[in-house]
Amino acid sequence: MLHFSRDFSFENTAAHQNMMDDAFASISEEYKSGEVGYYNLPHDSHALLDEVQELIQGNILLNSGQIKDIAVIGIGGSSLGIKAVNSLMLSKNLNTRRLHFFENSDPIDISRTMAKLRKENTLFIVISKSGSTIETTSIFKTIISYFDLELESVDSQRVIVITDKGSSLSLFAKHYGVKQFNISDNVGGRFSVLSAVGIVPLTLAGYDTKTLLDSAEGFLTRFFNHEEDHILEKACHFYEHSPMQSINVLFAYANDLENLCKWYVQLWGESLGKINTQEKNVGLTPIGLIGSIDQHSFLQLLIEGPKDKTVTFVSIEDFENDLSIPDVTLKHIEKTNFVNSNSFNTLINAQCDATRESLIQSGVSVDSIVFQRICEGNIGTMIIYYELLTSLVGAMLHVNTYDQPGVELGKDILYKKFGK
Amino acid sequence: MLHFSRDFSFENTAAHQNMMDDAFASISEEYKSGEVGYYNLPHDSHALLDEVQELIQGNILLNSGQIKDIAVIGIGGSSLGIKAVNSLMLSKNLNTRRLHFFENSDPIDISRTMAKLRKENTLFIVISKSGSTIETTSIFKTIISYFDLELESVDSQRVIVITDKGSSLSLFAKHYGVKQFNISDNVGGRFSVLSAVGIVPLTLAGYDTKTLLDSAEGFLTRFFNHEEDHILEKACHFYEHSPMQSINVLFAYANDLENLCKWYVQLWGESLGKINTQEKNVGLTPIGLIGSIDQHSFLQLLIEGPKDKTVTFVSIEDFENDLSIPDVTLKHIEKTNFVNSNSFNTLINAQCDATRESLIQSGVSVDSIVFQRICEGNIGTMIIYYELLTSLVGAMLHVNTYDQPGVELGKDILYKKFGK
Repeated sequence: MLHFSRDFSFENTAAHQNMMDDAFASISEEYKSGEVGYYNLPHDSHALLDEVQELIQGNILLNSGQIKDIAVIGIGGSSLGIKAVNSLMLSKNLNTRRLHFFENSDPIDISRTMAKLRKENTLFIVISKSGSTIETTSIFKTIISYFDLELESVDSQRVIVITDKGSSLSLFAKHYGVKQFNISDNVGGRFSVLSAVGIVPLTLAGYDTKTLLDSAEGFLTRFFNHEEDHILEKACHFYEHSPMQSINVLFAYANDLENLCKWYVQLWGESLGKINTQEKNVGLTPIGLIGSIDQHSFLQLLIEGPKDKTVTFVSIEDFENDLSIPDVTLKHIEKTNFVNSNSFNTLINAQCDATRESLIQSGVSVDSIVFQRICEGNIGTMIIYYELLTSLVGAMLHVNTYDQPGVELGKDILYKKFGK
Repeated sequence: MLHFSRDFSFENTAAHQNMMDDAFASISEEYKSGEVGYYNLPHDSHALLDEVQELIQGNILLNSGQIKDIAVIGIGGSSLGIKAVNSLMLSKNLNTRRLHFFENSDPIDISRTMAKLRKENTLFIVISKSGSTIETTSIFKTIISYFDLELESVDSQRVIVITDKGSSLSLFAKHYGVKQFNISDNVGGRFSVLSAVGIVPLTLAGYDTKTLLDSAEGFLTRFFNHEEDHILEKACHFYEHSPMQSINVLFAYANDLENLCKWYVQLWGESLGKINTQEKNVGLTPIGLIGSIDQHSFLQLLIEGPKDKTVTFVSIEDFENDLSIPDVTLKHIEKTNFVNSNSFNTLINAQCDATRESLIQSGVSVDSIVFQRICEGNIGTMIIYYELLTSLVGAMLHVNTYDQPGVELGKDILYKKFGK
């Protein structure tokens, strides 16, 4: 269960209702027309679960239990969602196989991650929609060389590819007899975590991806049945306040939520930051914070700075960890004894509540999302919730939520730098 | 060497000159009057180096080489700066002792970090200016209980305290015979990395903190001799554009720069987000990004979204790592072969340059800071540079750069929740 609540006021005026109706109609049309593919993933990706089991049966390295580590080579939408789920679930599971990530063209980071792996225990998953992502192909070639992978022979089973049908990477896989999973053309990278991009590595790592998908599917169905209209109201509120509150903060109270924040930052920033149909530069700026740490960093700005931000608190009701502050008294530092014998679970959530109340008193627009506990089902709900919210705000802003034309210029300049 | 350059235009008008003169005079006065203490740290903290050596000589656990791990228990200004330096230097050094951080009231994180440590190899450093930070005292008590620390006897040498003179934590240390280092009253937490807060743990971990301080001192001296006036111009530009460009992005091209970005976020956000002397809510919003990763996330918003951001690129000229993209051709993915045989060092910096140029072409205000290489000296320069820049912008905004009154409300509410 995820519990959604809001502390900002929202009036159900006729103008608001029109705006919500239009956005709802717009994304319903995206769904029904098949123009935008992510809506189908919670249902359709169930087929991948069998396909992954077949892969495990048929792949000698996986089937024999040799593979202990999975190296994911991908960047942006090809890593952020996987990392978000993995970070949250890692402490819950005795994983079958452990995930590692190669996502940056940073030589120190690549060297460090390669040094952690041993070829005989590792499966390499190369993920790129287009198949020509410069970081991904460059790192893949470096890995081939470093681990001496013989793709023409034994090591073709040590590599898996996830890419668009017909992409250069897909053709590569066919050529070398490497197993591939495909992403639909109409699923954008940042909306792809419930496609093969996320489901294949997460299933191989031992997570309950069936429940992840079931839960997302349930929420999506309820949304399109108008049983989750609070999303419409939140989208409307965010859109309407966007001229003044152009920054949307996710304030998440747990270290392991940091990668979920990064996934959100990509989804929100890259989807909504656009030149819209009226040729205006629009967009909302996402920021991820971690509590209680950032109470000692960013909170001052939220409270006393310009009122240009909304804040969404994310917290975990039950950490399933009973670590408590012992009933110890230390001479001269008795002042904080009032939390003695409480669990850290209680403390961190009280800090979240106190911070939320202090923001409300300071006139900041606040809402909250509470994970009853961390599990695949609740993460699945969170993912589809944010994807739907993004699509709705995108419709209200009159942008193309699903493209990213602005990044091409930098790529062109890079190509020229290398004499292309 | 750090190389500073700017791509935004700046005219040296009389109005600008006045603004810069006033801010310079204002912070010179802070320095000379002794009202603000961080200006003295690069010089004064040299005395700590001897004090730490004496500690090592006199402490049987340190002197015998038993201590392999140092657990830092602190939050906000008591951890961010240490983490920033440690992350950058970790891959350079064969550390004498390894740093670990307890900074959040997150039970999963605390349990995980405790499980990594063994009592006999660990020194615990408790850092809190006030001595009554709820996370810090609660975690400290938990550690005492978990590791069965006997402060009354043998384990008093296993703990070090860093706190304000006369604080509750200082009295605690005196009572139990625990070694303490003090922070001056007039040094705020977020400006404290060059005080005992940073220098003691970093020196114990084996970093060259003398060079860190020397370099910061040199830069500070040059600044007050008007040999680094580019900071004045940047402060003036940021201040003047703050009504429209209220978000200042640090786009850092290396994974290990992430904690430096977090240090910057606290410094900038908490110092400048204030109710100013004219009772206005002012402030600039800091955001840290990592390249090339965030080219696949945030860049679209920078290019096509509202023009409400400045971007400062941070890059490393020489990673001192020669990992190269091998000259491998893979069937069907030849398109990215143009980078073959180049180092990742070359690739990531070309990506940084290309992204910078694409932002300039899109009308974004851009400047750059290049680390010739990562070393203590360059990090020291970067720290004092950003502290001076923050003070200057604070003077221009007419705020108290050094307090954080906004966070008290949440603390009061928290106390009440526990019946205080």
